[in-house]
Amino acid sequence: MELEFRSGVDVELVKSSAADSDVIFAARVSTQGERTREVAEDTEKAISGLINFLMRERHGSPFEHSVMTFYVKAPIFVWREHMRHRIASYNEESGRYRVLEPCFYVPDEDRKLVQIGKAGAYTFELGTPEQHKITDDSFREACTQAYQQYEKMLAAGVAREVARGVLPVTTYSSAYVTMNARAMMNFLSLRRSAPDSHFPSYPQREIELVAEKYEDAWAKLMPITHSAFVANGRVAP
Amino acid sequence: MELEFRSGVDVELVKSSAADSDVIFAARVSTQGERTREVAEDTEKAISGLINFLMRERHGSPFEHSVMTFYVKAPIFVWREHMRHRIASYNEESGRYRVLEPCFYVPDEDRKLVQIGKAGAYTFELGTPEQHKITDDSFREACTQAYQQYEKMLAAGVAREVARGVLPVTTYSSAYVTMNARAMMNFLSLRRSAPDSHFPSYPQREIELVAEKYEDAWAKLMPITHSAFVANGRVAP
Amino acid sequence: MELEFRSGVDVELVKSSAADSDVIFAARVSTQGERTREVAEDTEKAISGLINFLMRERHGSPFEHSVMTFYVKAPIFVWREHMRHRIASYNEESGRYRVLEPCFYVPDEDRKLVQIGKAGAYTFELGTPEQHKITDDSFREACTQAYQQYEKMLAAGVAREVARGVLPVTTYSSAYVTMNARAMMNFLSLRRSAPDSHFPSYPQREIELVAEKYEDAWAKLMPITHSAFVANGRVAP
Amino acid sequence: MELEFRSGVDVELVKSSAADSDVIFAARVSTQGERTREVAEDTEKAISGLINFLMRERHGSPFEHSVMTFYVKAPIFVWREHMRHRIASYNEESGRYRVLEPCFYVPDEDRKLVQIGKAGAYTFELGTPEQHKITDDSFREACTQAYQQYEKMLAAGVAREVARGVLPVTTYSSAYVTMNARAMMNFLSLRRSAPDSHFPSYPQREIELVAEKYEDAWAKLMPITHSAFVANGRVAP
Repeated sequence: MELEFRSGVDVELVKSSAADSDVIFAARVSTQGERTREVAEDTEKAISGLINFLMRERHGSPFEHSVMTFYVKAPIFVWREHMRHRIASYNEESGRYRVLEPCFYVPDEDRKLVQIGKAGAYTFELGTPEQHKITDDSFREACTQAYQQYEKMLAAGVAREVARGVLPVTTYSSAYVTMNARAMMNFLSLRRSAPDSHFPSYPQREIELVAEKYEDAWAKLMPITHSAFVANGRVAP
Repeated sequence: MELEFRSGVDVELVKSSAADSDVIFAARVSTQGERTREVAEDTEKAISGLINFLMRERHGSPFEHSVMTFYVKAPIFVWREHMRHRIASYNEESGRYRVLEPCFYVPDEDRKLVQIGKAGAYTFELGTPEQHKITDDSFREACTQAYQQYEKMLAAGVAREVARGVLPVTTYSSAYVTMNARAMMNFLSLRRSAPDSHFPSYPQREIELVAEKYEDAWAKLMPITHSAFVANGRVAP
Repeated sequence: MELEFRSGVDVELVKSSAADSDVIFAARVSTQGERTREVAEDTEKAISGLINFLMRERHGSPFEHSVMTFYVKAPIFVWREHMRHRIASYNEESGRYRVLEPCFYVPDEDRKLVQIGKAGAYTFELGTPEQHKITDDSFREACTQAYQQYEKMLAAGVAREVARGVLPVTTYSSAYVTMNARAMMNFLSLRRSAPDSHFPSYPQREIELVAEKYEDAWAKLMPITHSAFVANGRVAP
Repeated sequence: MELEFRSGVDVELVKSSAADSDVIFAARVSTQGERTREVAEDTEKAISGLINFLMRERHGSPFEHSVMTFYVKAPIFVWREHMRHRIASYNEESGRYRVLEPCFYVPDEDRKLVQIGKAGAYTFELGTPEQHKITDDSFREACTQAYQQYEKMLAAGVAREVARGVLPVTTYSSAYVTMNARAMMNFLSLRRSAPDSHFPSYPQREIELVAEKYEDAWAKLMPITHSAFVANGRVAP
C-alpha cells in the first residue's frame, strides 16, 4: 500500500445541539423555576450580561446542556493526550478490527522543533533547515520501515491486534468526540496557549491544532458564550 | 398564596440531538476509520443488526453521542434519587434565589401505599380507602402548616435560604436534565420495573413515573435502539 | 418519639489513604517513568516546591490518588447541594428502608438570617432577636407538625417511602462520602468563602460548615498540599 | 542505549484503603443511618450475605469507598485501551518531559497469534513456529529502526515531544492508576475473559494480563467481595 505523509489535523463538526440560548434557559430555572420560553425576546445585551455573570462567578452547570460531536483525524500521540479528558465521549477506529492505513503525521516547515527552557515552561524555536530535514527524513524512514514490518506480519497471517504493535504513535487515527460546552472550555483552557489567558498553558502544538479548530466551530455555534469565555481570561467555569 | 396539591410528574423533551443513525456512525468508525456518510442508504435490517450486536456485546460508547435535554417537574424526594445519577447534567430551581411556590405532591388513589416483604424485594398493595384518606389528609395538613411557617419567616425578613428549611420533600421542584442515550439506559434499567428486565429493580413509584416519560420520549427519537434495549432484557450496555 | 432540635453538622474522617507523598510519586512518574521510592529522603523544601508548581500550573491529576472517606450528618438541604458534586461517592441513609429519626436542624443564634444585596453577591446580617425567635419558633412548629403526620401515616400502615414526603428538608440525614484531594479542592473552592480566595464564592452557611470540617481534616493529612492550595488563592487545579 | 525486548506487564499494588468491611459500613448507613462500628463482630456469613445481596441487586455505590493505587508498566497499545476507562485516575510518564527508554514488548511463544472468526467473537490459535519467528523478527527490526531514528533526532537537538512520534505503540510506558472496587469490577468484566462470566468479553490478551494481576491483588484485599463478584457471573454492580 502506498504511504501517505502529511501534516495538520482534520476536525469536522458532525452535529450539535448548542446555542447561547441553552445557557439562558438553564440558568433561569434557578430564579424562575419554570420552563423559559421567551429567550427570543431578550435583548442581546441581557443575554450577554447573564452569560458573563455565570462565567465570572463560575456557575459551570448551565454550560453543560450544549453538546457537539466532532469527527477528528489526528496522530495517535494527540489521541493519547486527548483521551486524558474524561468528560467526553469517544469512538475511535480500531487496530483490532481493521487494517490501519499507512497515513503518518510529519512536522511541516512551520513546526517549531527546538525546545528551550525547563519543564512546564518551555518555549520553542523553529530550528534550522538541517534540523527540519533530519526530522522529516527520520519520520519517513521510521514509518516506512514500520509499515513494511506490519504488512509482513499481516501477510503471514498474524492477527491485526498483534501486528499493529510496530506502528508508530505518529500514525493517524480517526474518532468521533462528543463533548459539552463546559468540557470544551476546560479543553481549550488547557490545550490552547493564548496571550489573553489568565492561567498559562503549554500544550503540545499538535493537540493545539485540534483545539484551534474546535474553538472555531464552537465560537460559531455559541458566539456570546465564546466571547464571555475569552473576556474571562479563558478560565473554564 | 394559594396552595396547590397534585399528583404526577411533568417531563417535557426540550431539545435533542439523538437518532439511531448516531449509533451507526460511531460504531462504524471502529471498522472503517472514516467519517461514514451513507447511513441513509442502509437497510433498516442492517442498522438493527448492528445496534443489537452492540447492545448484546456491551459496547456502550457508541450510545453516548445521542443527547437529550428534558424539563422535569417532580417532588424533591424524586430529585434526591435522580441526582444520584452522576452521568447527567442538571440545573434546578433554587430556594436560595427565589421564593418556592406552594405546589405539593400528594399520592393519588392509584398509588399503592402498603409495602409487603423485606428490603430490596418489596411488593406493594393499594391499601384501604381509609389509608388513602389518612395519607391525603396528612400530606395536606403538613404542607399547609409548613408553608405557613415559610411565609411567616419570609414576612419577617428572614432569608429564603433559611426559611425554606421547613418545606417538605414532597414540594415540587423543576430542573433541566441533559443525558445521553447510554445514561438513559442506565437510568431506565434501575428506575423502571419491567417484567421483561433481565435484572429486577425496585424503584420508588414516583421516580418511575419520570422514567416512563423519559422512555416514551427516547423511544420516539431512537426506536431501533430502544427496541434493542428491551430485547436485550433492559441491560444497559 | 421525642424530637431533637440542634444546629451544626457532624463530620468524621472514617478512613483515608492520603498524604503529600502521594502527590510526589504521581507527579514524578512523568519525568522519571519509574516507581519512585525515595520520597522519604526528599527535603521538605523540594516536596513543597514541586507541589506548589503543580498547583500553580494546574496539573490536577497527581492530586487524585489521595482519597478520604467521611461520615457526615447534615440537614437534607445541605445534601441536596453536596450531591451536585458528581466527583464523589455517596451512601446515604434511606427513607425507604428505615423510619427516619426526628432530628432537625434549626439555625442557632450565630446564624446570620438577613440577606442583603442581589443574587450571586449576597451579604448577610445577623438579624434581630425577634427575627431569630420567629425562625426558631417556625422551625420547631413546622417540624413537630410534620413528624406527627409522618408517625400517623406509619401507624396506619402506610409505607415509609410514601410517609416521608411530609418531612422537611431541615431533617438531618447521614451519609458516607468518599472523595479524592482534587475533588476536595474543587469542593472547598466553591463551598467555602475565604478572604484569600482568588475567585469569590457565596456558599450557604450550612454547607460551608461541612467544608470547614473537611478542610480541617484534609489539612492534617496533607499539610503541604493544603498550604499550596491556600497560597494559590484556593484555585482548584 | 541498549534495547530491551520483553513480554508481560508489571503491576504493583502501591497502596490501598480497601476492605470488605468498607462495603458493610457503606451499605448499612441506608438502613441504620448511623456510623456503624461493630463490623468486627459480624459473622463472616452475615458479611458475605449482605455483600452477595448488594452484588445481585446491583447496588453499586457501597463498593466505591474501597480504593487502590497501582503502578503499572505496559505497552502503549495497552494504555490506549486502559485509558478509555474514565472512572480511574492516571499519571503516566511523559514523552514530552523525558527521553523514553528503549524497552519494547514482543509477544512471547505463548501468545496466540492467529485470529479466527469475525469481529466481536474472535478466537485465537497459537500459530506456527514460523509465524512466531516472523513476528519476533518484525518487532525487533521495527523497534530497533525506530529507536535509531528517535536517537538521531534527539542528537540533532529536536524536541523530545516531536522525536517520540516515530516510537511504536509497543513501547513500554509506566503509570500510576487509582480506582475503586466498583470501577475494578467494571474493568474486570470487560477486560478479562472468564468461562464463568455471565456476559462474554473479548479483551486483547495484553490488557487481560493487566486485568489478571489487578484481580489477584484485589481478591487479596477484598476476598468476600471478590467471591461475590465471581459468583454473580462477573457482572459489575
